[in-house]
Amino acid sequence: MSKLRPILTVDDLERFIDAEFSEVHVDGRVYSLLEVSPGKATLRLDPIDRHLRPGGTVSGPTLFTLADLGAYFVILAHIGLAKHTVTTNMNINFMHKPKPGPLSCHSTILKLGKRLAVVDCQIVDDTGVLVSQATATYSIPPE
Amino acid sequence: MSKLRPILTVDDLERFIDAEFSEVHVDGRVYSLLEVSPGKATLRLDPIDRHLRPGGTVSGPTLFTLADLGAYFVILAHIGLAKHTVTTNMNINFMHKPKPGPLSCHSTILKLGKRLAVVDCQIVDDTGVLVSQATATYSIPPE
Amino acid sequence: MSKLRPILTVDDLERFIDAEFSEVHVDGRVYSLLEVSPGKATLRLDPIDRHLRPGGTVSGPTLFTLADLGAYFVILAHIGLAKHTVTTNMNINFMHKPKPGPLSCHSTILKLGKRLAVVDCQIVDDTGVLVSQATATYSIPPE
Amino acid sequence: MSKLRPILTVDDLERFIDAEFSEVHVDGRVYSLLEVSPGKATLRLDPIDRHLRPGGTVSGPTLFTLADLGAYFVILAHIGLAKHTVTTNMNINFMHKPKPGPLSCHSTILKLGKRLAVVDCQIVDDTGVLVSQATATYSIPPE
Repeated sequence: MSKLRPILTVDDLERFIDAEFSEVHVDGRVYSLLEVSPGKATLRLDPIDRHLRPGGTVSGPTLFTLADLGAYFVILAHIGLAKHTVTTNMNINFMHKPKPGPLSCHSTILKLGKRLAVVDCQIVDDTGVLVSQATATYSIPPE
Repeated sequence: MSKLRPILTVDDLERFIDAEFSEVHVDGRVYSLLEVSPGKATLRLDPIDRHLRPGGTVSGPTLFTLADLGAYFVILAHIGLAKHTVTTNMNINFMHKPKPGPLSCHSTILKLGKRLAVVDCQIVDDTGVLVSQATATYSIPPE
Repeated sequence: MSKLRPILTVDDLERFIDAEFSEVHVDGRVYSLLEVSPGKATLRLDPIDRHLRPGGTVSGPTLFTLADLGAYFVILAHIGLAKHTVTTNMNINFMHKPKPGPLSCHSTILKLGKRLAVVDCQIVDDTGVLVSQATATYSIPPE
Repeated sequence: MSKLRPILTVDDLERFIDAEFSEVHVDGRVYSLLEVSPGKATLRLDPIDRHLRPGGTVSGPTLFTLADLGAYFVILAHIGLAKHTVTTNMNINFMHKPKPGPLSCHSTILKLGKRLAVVDCQIVDDTGVLVSQATATYSIPPE
């Protein structure tokens, strides 16, 4: 996939989120886009109380949301803001219960076709444990 | 799967949620368990603003959460509250964008083994449109 | 999904298989299309030695093939032979090891859009045990 | 996952296949295990006619079989031959139609627990095109 080149920067995407996708920040600035590179992006979550389960672990829906956002942003970075992609499928595996600290979602584009994009997401904690892996498919509507 | 018999009622599960799983109600009483029957359960969501996306649709993470809770409750209803199951995999398909109204998740146990349970979840809106389908796997720890 | 109406019969599909998809019969006439109805189809497999694993169970790849063919035929039955659909995703769960006898795949269309179709496949043995469940997504190319 | 260390070599696995899993070679020696390393293995397929579809592409069931074998062998390499793992779930994405030539499945262990193993499989052709990606879950029975 070495031909992939991002056309948006981290700053471009953050301006888009602030202007048009502000529900990302509904619980405060818990998500930070750390990096965009060819075929890849990294999104970090600093969980707050509502993301946790009793016993002190980050909830499954929170991990799903992190993967869904991480996959969405890596696609936007490579196709631009004009197209409105939607998630059609997500297959997510929960490997290890994360401690209630920051998590990073490393997203890698596996396919970027005209109609479908497929993204691999690996969510790790700050000690490098692979907490969750997801494969997400997005539909890219015709122009 | 006609041998499946629930051992908990809707009331039992609601008492459990209130006593030990109150984060279900973090956004108010948006979830209602409507029915438990052999191998099946129905969970309803009345979405509020934070579940919606601009343009007026229920967000993907909200649908994931509804499926995850619906699958969890149908398993609990059949194995009891003593065991602590955890989601190991969810495969979720998003078929139609739901209008911003109530959604019902119909969960059906496909397998209830000693170590793994598999549940099919079909999320429909009030007009019967199939909005989302998920297949979820839960690990049942040894006693 | 009550609006779905098949436009091909079992006989139509069998003629298509004989004329244009004869690799279905590469191991003899092990597959039989039993029924097509609105939104549904049933495909039967009578396994032969090469479908079995030592210990006498039907192999995972054989179950995958049965689900893939079953999903493909129910889509063809509803969209006709002119379009060339391709599998883009299959999520398959293996619940119970099947005995080395006949298996039926009951396929149900969950979504039939212009670009994507999603099908649920449930594979049962002759005693009604649910051996495997799959959810398959097919891409329908533009005309 | 740097703690993973294989306990079987390529030669060990090939002897096991010849002695106890000879149905791998039912169509001749089309599969070759190329490499085993910490957390990883590579399995190659040289397709023959029965793996192809008209128009000259490798069939979906063939790709599934390659991923299933590749994931199985990387687990065996790390847990040994005494345990009898079984596939419980496979989620497979078909990205690009492969040309009718050799394919390599690169398997990476994402989790190796006491009861469940999760493996990522990436199938590439000889030009490096990512043809298919799969995530497979295996159940590891108690001793």
